[in-house]
Amino acid sequence: MINESMYQLGSKPSCIRELFMFGLERAKTVGKENVYDFSIGNPSVPAPLRVVEAFKEMTARGDTLEIHSYTPAPGDPYARSAVAANLALRTNTPIGMEHIFFTCGAAPALVSVLRALALPGSEVIGITPYFPEYRPFTECAGHKFVACPADYDQFQINFEALEACITPNTQAVIINSPNNPSGAVYTKETLEKLAQLLRRKNEEYGHPIYVIADEPYRELTYDGAYVHYIPEIYPNTIICYSYSKVFSLPGERIGYFCVPPCCTDGKKLFAAAAGAARIMGHVCAPSLQQMVVRACAEVKPDLSVYDKNRKVLYEMLTRYGYHCVYPKGAFYLFVKAPYGTAKEFSDKAKERDLLIVPGDDFGCLEYFRLSTCVSYNMILRSLPVFEQLIAEKP
Amino acid sequence: MINESMYQLGSKPSCIRELFMFGLERAKTVGKENVYDFSIGNPSVPAPLRVVEAFKEMTARGDTLEIHSYTPAPGDPYARSAVAANLALRTNTPIGMEHIFFTCGAAPALVSVLRALALPGSEVIGITPYFPEYRPFTECAGHKFVACPADYDQFQINFEALEACITPNTQAVIINSPNNPSGAVYTKETLEKLAQLLRRKNEEYGHPIYVIADEPYRELTYDGAYVHYIPEIYPNTIICYSYSKVFSLPGERIGYFCVPPCCTDGKKLFAAAAGAARIMGHVCAPSLQQMVVRACAEVKPDLSVYDKNRKVLYEMLTRYGYHCVYPKGAFYLFVKAPYGTAKEFSDKAKERDLLIVPGDDFGCLEYFRLSTCVSYNMILRSLPVFEQLIAEKP
Repeated sequence: MINESMYQLGSKPSCIRELFMFGLERAKTVGKENVYDFSIGNPSVPAPLRVVEAFKEMTARGDTLEIHSYTPAPGDPYARSAVAANLALRTNTPIGMEHIFFTCGAAPALVSVLRALALPGSEVIGITPYFPEYRPFTECAGHKFVACPADYDQFQINFEALEACITPNTQAVIINSPNNPSGAVYTKETLEKLAQLLRRKNEEYGHPIYVIADEPYRELTYDGAYVHYIPEIYPNTIICYSYSKVFSLPGERIGYFCVPPCCTDGKKLFAAAAGAARIMGHVCAPSLQQMVVRACAEVKPDLSVYDKNRKVLYEMLTRYGYHCVYPKGAFYLFVKAPYGTAKEFSDKAKERDLLIVPGDDFGCLEYFRLSTCVSYNMILRSLPVFEQLIAEKP
Repeated sequence: MINESMYQLGSKPSCIRELFMFGLERAKTVGKENVYDFSIGNPSVPAPLRVVEAFKEMTARGDTLEIHSYTPAPGDPYARSAVAANLALRTNTPIGMEHIFFTCGAAPALVSVLRALALPGSEVIGITPYFPEYRPFTECAGHKFVACPADYDQFQINFEALEACITPNTQAVIINSPNNPSGAVYTKETLEKLAQLLRRKNEEYGHPIYVIADEPYRELTYDGAYVHYIPEIYPNTIICYSYSKVFSLPGERIGYFCVPPCCTDGKKLFAAAAGAARIMGHVCAPSLQQMVVRACAEVKPDLSVYDKNRKVLYEMLTRYGYHCVYPKGAFYLFVKAPYGTAKEFSDKAKERDLLIVPGDDFGCLEYFRLSTCVSYNMILRSLPVFEQLIAEKP
C-alpha cells in the first residue's frame, strides 16, 4: 500500500512545468519562433568564465580520488572556509566554516532548517507571493504553513498582516529577497521593522522566532539595489543559499545553509539541521561542485542580459497599460492581470502561445509571473500579443 | 526552540567517522605509516578511465546551459534512457526510462521509497548486519524498524527469523546484496525462498510486501559471484542504486531508484517516491553527473585492487585463527571478534592504532568490519598487530 499524500505530491506536475511542456509540444506544431515561453526561471546566461574554467581544471586533474571522494557531511573544509571567508569579508562579521553546511541546492537547505525547527503545533509564516514549494516543504516538515499577504503596492512586508499571523507557536518567518516572483528587494527599513516586530514577539513569547532567509537571488540585483545582510539587523536569521542562479548552474545542486554565530541556539540549530539532512539521505553535496565553489567563491555574475530583458518588458508592458512594480532583483516581473483572474488571463494568453504563469501557486490570484531568462528576440516577438490581450479588455 | 530528535541525529558522529578522524589525528603524532585505518568504505581505486574522460569532455563543452541546466525531477530523459536500456539488456526485461528516477545517491533513493511506503503503524524489516543508516532512515520515514538476524553461518537470510518478524503491518524488507558489511552475495536459492515466503504472506495479508534492494555494490563481486536481478524472482522489488562504488565517485551523489514494470502498484509507488523526494528538496540529481552516467552506463570497474586486498586479509587473518566468511562482494570483511565483544576488541585494537569498526551499529555485537579500500602496503604493515591481538586471547 502506498502513502496517499506522497502520491498526491508526486503525481501533480507544477503549473510552471506544465506550461513549459505545453510550449515544447506547441513548438512542434507552430514552430519554435511562434511560442513565447516566459514560464521557467532557468538561467539563460552561460556560467561565468571562471566557473567554466574551474570545472575544466578540476576534471582535468589526474587524482580522481581527490576530487570525487566523500567529503564530510557539511562539506569539504576548504570549500566551507572559502565560502565563510567571502561572507565574513562582505559582512564584516566572524563567519567561519563551522557555520556553513553545503547542501544539494537551496531547497534541501530550506527543508533541513524547517525540520530542525519543527515542533508539535509549530507554525511557519511565508509572505505572499511566495515560492510555491514553501508550502509543501513546511507542511511536510511538520509545521502549519501560514500565508501572510505582502504589501501589494511595493511587495515589501505588510506588518499589520504579519503581526496578525504571529502566534506563540510561530517558529519562523520565511523571507525571500530578492523575491521570486515579484523581483522586490527588501529595504533596510523593511528589515528593521521586521526585526523590531520579531524582537517584541520573542520577548512576549519567551522564545526566538527565526527568520529563514531564502537567498538564491542574492547576487541578482539591478540599478544598484543592495541586499542587506539580515543577521546584522536581526541576529536570529538563517541563510539558505544556492549557486543555481548566480553561476547559472541550476542542475548542479550546490548550495548551503549558514547559521551565523549571532543566532540564538545557533550551534544546536546547525546540528539539528544536519540531523534532518542526514535522515533525508544527505551524505554530502556533490564534491566536484564544492571544489568549483571553493575556487569561485567571489565570482560575480554578468546580469546585462536579464537587465536588458527586464527593462524592455517593463517599459513596453506599462506602456500598453499593464500594472507592474519595477523589479529590482531576481529575474522575473510580476504583472497584474488587466482583467479577470490571472488564471483566466493566462489561459487566454496560452491560446495565443504566450506562456505566463498565473500567481495562484504563489498565493496571488491577481498577478502573473514572467521570467526574464529568455531571449531578447522572443520578447520582441511577443510584444504584439501582450498589446492585443490588454486591448481586448471587456 | 529546536527539534530535539533532529538534534540528537545531527550531533552524534558515526562510530566510523569518529574512528576515521581519530586516525587522522594519530597520524600527526605517530606518523601516517603507523596508523592502520580500516574504517571507511571510501573507494581507493581511481574512477574508470572512460568516466574520467566523460567528465573532461562534458566540462570542455562550450554550451554550459546544455550541461548545467535543470533536468526534469526524475532526470534527463537521455540519461534515464541510457540507464534503462542497459538494465533492460542485462535483465532481458522491459525496463524503460519511465521506471528510473535519478537521485543524489542511493541514500535519498532509499529514503524516498521508504517514505512512499510509510503508513500509520507500518513496519520495515532490515536483515542484520545492516547498513547503520537503515534504522534512522526507516524510523524517520514513519515506520517501525524491525531488525531480523541473518543466518550467521553464511550471512544469507535466516528464514525462520524473518517469518517471525513479518506482521500484517510489514510494508517492506530491505536487503543489501552484495552486503555491507559481510560481503555476502545472496544466492538464487536465498532469493527464491524469500520470494516464496513473501508471496505467501502477501496472500495471507492481502497486500504486497515490497523488497527494497539496496544495491550500491551490485557490480563489485569476486570469484564470478553473480548478482541476480531480483524483480525477476520477486516482482514487488524496488532497486536503489548508486554510482559511488562502481565508478569511485562517492562524493558526486548520483544514483537512482528503479521501480520495474512488474511491481504491483508500481506507477503509484514511483509517483509517491517522487513526491517524497520533492518534499525533501530534491530538484534533480546533479546534471553533469547525469551526463557522465549517460555516457558510461555500461562501464565496468577494475576490481583487482580490492580483490587482492580481500584475499590477503582473508588468508592471513584466518591463518592467525580469526573467523570470517569469505566475502564474495562489496569491499569489506566481517570478522568475528576472537574474544570479548567486538567493541571491546576494537577498543583494544585502537590502542595500537589499528582502526576497525565494531559491528554494533550494524546490529552485530560480535563482529567487526574491515574495509578493503586501503593500500596493500598498509595491510601488510598491519598484519603483525592482528597476529598479536589474537595471541593475547585470555
